[in-house]
Amino acid sequence: MKFSINRSMLLQLLNHVTKSISSRVITPILSGIKFEVTADSITLTGSNTEMSIITKLNENNKDKIQVEQSGTCVLPSKYITEIIKKIDGDTVSFELIDTNLMQVYTTSSEFTLNTLSVEEYPNIFLITEEKSFQLQKQIVQNLIKQTVFATSQSESRPILTGVNFVIQGKDLIMTATDSYRLAQKKVLLDVEPVMSKNLIIPAKTLQELSKILDEIEDNVLTIYTSQSKILFITESICLQSNLIEGNYPDTSKLIPTEFNTVIEADLNELLHAIDRASLLSRDIHNNIVNADIKTDGMEIKSISQEIGQVREKIQSAQISGDELKISFNARYALDALKAMEVNKITISLNGELKPFIIHSKDDENLIQLILPIRTY
Amino acid sequence: MKFSINRSMLLQLLNHVTKSISSRVITPILSGIKFEVTADSITLTGSNTEMSIITKLNENNKDKIQVEQSGTCVLPSKYITEIIKKIDGDTVSFELIDTNLMQVYTTSSEFTLNTLSVEEYPNIFLITEEKSFQLQKQIVQNLIKQTVFATSQSESRPILTGVNFVIQGKDLIMTATDSYRLAQKKVLLDVEPVMSKNLIIPAKTLQELSKILDEIEDNVLTIYTSQSKILFITESICLQSNLIEGNYPDTSKLIPTEFNTVIEADLNELLHAIDRASLLSRDIHNNIVNADIKTDGMEIKSISQEIGQVREKIQSAQISGDELKISFNARYALDALKAMEVNKITISLNGELKPFIIHSKDDENLIQLILPIRTY
Repeated sequence: MKFSINRSMLLQLLNHVTKSISSRVITPILSGIKFEVTADSITLTGSNTEMSIITKLNENNKDKIQVEQSGTCVLPSKYITEIIKKIDGDTVSFELIDTNLMQVYTTSSEFTLNTLSVEEYPNIFLITEEKSFQLQKQIVQNLIKQTVFATSQSESRPILTGVNFVIQGKDLIMTATDSYRLAQKKVLLDVEPVMSKNLIIPAKTLQELSKILDEIEDNVLTIYTSQSKILFITESICLQSNLIEGNYPDTSKLIPTEFNTVIEADLNELLHAIDRASLLSRDIHNNIVNADIKTDGMEIKSISQEIGQVREKIQSAQISGDELKISFNARYALDALKAMEVNKITISLNGELKPFIIHSKDDENLIQLILPIRTY
Repeated sequence: MKFSINRSMLLQLLNHVTKSISSRVITPILSGIKFEVTADSITLTGSNTEMSIITKLNENNKDKIQVEQSGTCVLPSKYITEIIKKIDGDTVSFELIDTNLMQVYTTSSEFTLNTLSVEEYPNIFLITEEKSFQLQKQIVQNLIKQTVFATSQSESRPILTGVNFVIQGKDLIMTATDSYRLAQKKVLLDVEPVMSKNLIIPAKTLQELSKILDEIEDNVLTIYTSQSKILFITESICLQSNLIEGNYPDTSKLIPTEFNTVIEADLNELLHAIDRASLLSRDIHNNIVNADIKTDGMEIKSISQEIGQVREKIQSAQISGDELKISFNARYALDALKAMEVNKITISLNGELKPFIIHSKDDENLIQLILPIRTY
């Protein structure tokens, strides 16, 4: 195995695959990255058993690698990435100088790394024999950004640590909830996929996918799903992940459709007011703030015996329906507002203890639901 | 007490004083910032018993404050800073609405904060009756940056957690050592100060001073010293700190003046080579790297049984004198090299176990000394 490769190109490939490498390694072999070099290309594989990422030198970049001898090896992820980051020069050379010694060198630097065992590296079987469908990158990025934050951080109900991914007819619906708040985004597909789907994708998978999508220029994802796995393929990467087993709760009945109070407000004004109000409550009062909703105006309030109190007037608020006082977790409201890419929002409520929803005329396919908190 | 003030101006003042407020507060009152408002100015004070910072609205900025009623109060540092950071608008108003209730408000936001007791706030006596001398900001910033990193992090010898500040005739000499490495910078003063000085300034004081100097535009510092304190005054801030008691070790004899081996090299090349060599040793080998110095060239090496090895050729190195192998802590060498603002450096050595120094023809007043490590 002997080849030279453009350093920044290799670094880009390494940055993709390392997203699948866990800092707490369960199997030592999975602390490594598998390098497969053929006559005119290189493929890197990283995996943490839950999720695997495979990335390959793009067809257009064949000139970035010069291969003298093809081969396969597994190099320690952490060190090879740091070395390629820090080594000088545009080109870096690799040569297997002994069964398990890889030399990585430029004119002035020469690293000799102990390799890991290629035989021990698990085979990653991609589920490409399944039926697939395609989505635009921009749509996938939005779907993730607008839902994944609402997944549960607690392992007590593993199902809620994932995002529910449903295809019904031409509708793709992603839902996340930690049982205190819920985020749901619907997308109308261009063509109807062959079959209905109802899967639970781990939040971690979607977060890493989102980071990679930010880094690459490919515009289309092909998505394959099986009973237990999901595979995302673009021109430059394959990311395959286990699904979370189980039945996601039916959330359709949770989202109310009729309301007693409706507020229209400016998203940014509300977001900054809640952020400020939570200044006094986030350390000692569980981040609880109150909204005082009257026909002639809306105020966000927070009171802390120890520190003091705050009142924020929402000047853009237009209220119709019943007056209402309601308490809620400021972080949930801030997360929801930050995920919405609109200027004007609508908050629709049904009394102080019923879930309220944040939505917008400018994006009717996104719903954020928050459960209020009983404070008396 | 009632006044309005330009928000960004107040934020700037708050950013200065909060540098003296400790996150682990020993006396509750010192979690507060003292606000003193007169007819046309405002003075803020923060303190952590070790160090106090006083900052005042600059003479040129009198129009940034409108005072209706002067007065004094102490506000919780953490909350008032966050509020001023996050509140909307160019101007923010303050009004003491009850003995210990301060209202902080704009058109839409209204915070009511519990104040702390003005009576409990300690009096800070500035040592301005002592003799003083002046230094240019640029010189002070360099002195700090080039020495303070070499102070000890361990409290076992408190003296070494400070920087030794010596004035002898027209020489100002700052020295820091943790007993494994030493950094010393000399500056020739324009005028001879009235008396000799030999003080130990806490590293923390110099680090916070350095941050403030980066933020302000004032060009000159007036420095007062007493037996137990040092005071730095610029147009916009006063920073007074306790000194560390005790006698700083005489380091003059530690620094060798004759050498058996002398290396001239490019600073950046050496810095990056040592940085890369330490990649393989920093996790498990205490950051030890080796230099192999031969008449015809110099290499930096590091070997790790577990990971592999690295050899870095220093192509710019010009060696005269004895050949030599030496081991040292890469972090010490990197800290020293990063503090030097030159392109070419000289390393002067006396065998594998004697301290070596890094210096430069382009800044003869800076010496970095490092103790090698015995590796056999």
